[in-house]
Amino acid sequence: MKNFKILIRYDGSCYDGWQRLKDNDNTIQGKIEDVLSKMTNTKIEIIGSGRTDKGVHAAMQVANFHAQTDKTADEVLSYLNRYLPKDIGVYQVEEVDERFHSRFNAKEKTYQYRIWNSPIHNVFERKYLYTIEQTLDLEKMQSAAKQFIGTHDFLAFSSLKKVKKSTVRTLTNVEVNKSGSEIVITMTGDGFLYNMARIIAGTIVEVGLGNMQAIEIDAIFESKVRANAGITLPAEGLVLKCVKY
Amino acid sequence: MKNFKILIRYDGSCYDGWQRLKDNDNTIQGKIEDVLSKMTNTKIEIIGSGRTDKGVHAAMQVANFHAQTDKTADEVLSYLNRYLPKDIGVYQVEEVDERFHSRFNAKEKTYQYRIWNSPIHNVFERKYLYTIEQTLDLEKMQSAAKQFIGTHDFLAFSSLKKVKKSTVRTLTNVEVNKSGSEIVITMTGDGFLYNMARIIAGTIVEVGLGNMQAIEIDAIFESKVRANAGITLPAEGLVLKCVKY
Repeated sequence: MKNFKILIRYDGSCYDGWQRLKDNDNTIQGKIEDVLSKMTNTKIEIIGSGRTDKGVHAAMQVANFHAQTDKTADEVLSYLNRYLPKDIGVYQVEEVDERFHSRFNAKEKTYQYRIWNSPIHNVFERKYLYTIEQTLDLEKMQSAAKQFIGTHDFLAFSSLKKVKKSTVRTLTNVEVNKSGSEIVITMTGDGFLYNMARIIAGTIVEVGLGNMQAIEIDAIFESKVRANAGITLPAEGLVLKCVKY
Repeated sequence: MKNFKILIRYDGSCYDGWQRLKDNDNTIQGKIEDVLSKMTNTKIEIIGSGRTDKGVHAAMQVANFHAQTDKTADEVLSYLNRYLPKDIGVYQVEEVDERFHSRFNAKEKTYQYRIWNSPIHNVFERKYLYTIEQTLDLEKMQSAAKQFIGTHDFLAFSSLKKVKKSTVRTLTNVEVNKSGSEIVITMTGDGFLYNMARIIAGTIVEVGLGNMQAIEIDAIFESKVRANAGITLPAEGLVLKCVKY
């Protein structure tokens, strides 16, 4: 049995997120599994490093799958790109130790939330940006970002309905950078709860708009109440940038 | 009467080209004229620097229009971006001399044809690239490109049906550059005939594939026969990059 690790990029605009829901669904996991199952004539299940929501993109998603096949990594790469739709691309395949597990072994993930802060349309990248026309105070956003660094209970910054497992996560870096009309919020940590990246970004934006203050963030952590945090920004601006092992 | 010069970007994927065909059509000129006519409560006609075909993009298209309006250039810019679709953006508006004419005064245009030369999908820019998976010989393409520089009768490199006006044009630069998996053909000249940029790019590609030789290009110019030149590459890879006055 071979274990293949694959690196994937996707434009999530047209999909119902990463995680397979049922047979013949419109998810990224489903599309990739369908191609691999056809390739091997067996039912293949892939393990992703984590889920991305409906509409969220990935510049680097990692998955692995076990298969009984004579195909080499290069042949798998070529097969996948031949049969996957154009908005899903596999850019690296390698055979790895059979114990490698994309989710359990993931040490660190980086998400970026991209904001287009101008009324002038960004024509060519519009599907990967969320537009906010109002003035955003960059320094205030940067102060807010710092409040998220460290180990916290992120329950208030998630959309979890039922809480069974720990909601404590460690973010090693949260920063806000501006280049021209684009503001990028970069978040790196050992894991992200459901909607966490979009709610952190939404809270930082609310501070930038003057609706909240950076010093309020500590109290939101302590409250553990979702409603106290900022809004969940739309999926279109979010991209899973990197997964480290 | 004011004369406004506007700089426009568009993703041409969803439009039937630049030139207005009739009322309420799906052209870029039509979309912009509709917004300006609404803004001024009069029928506005805009003059583009030239047409782009169905599916062709522009990073910089130039147009001008005359209007009796109290609105400043900044107000026109803001109004256009508010009401235009997200795949058409106006990024500069200025009031110019009443004699300025976008088409007649254009001195030089630059088009780029972008080729993605890899079987691995370019997920995020796929709508602005044409994929060729076969091996392309870059040096041969560069030799072919040089053959197009200078003043020639480009009749064989156009899809013109009826020829009333001169088909002589001067290209000051044609070059082919590769960066990673992307090959870009850049063409600069005083004007381009119908489909000329896509047929020149197609001929350069055929040389790169080994179907033609660079030294045949002179004979194709002399023949003035369209069928002797290379194929017309698809619209999706072509972008009007710059117009100079």
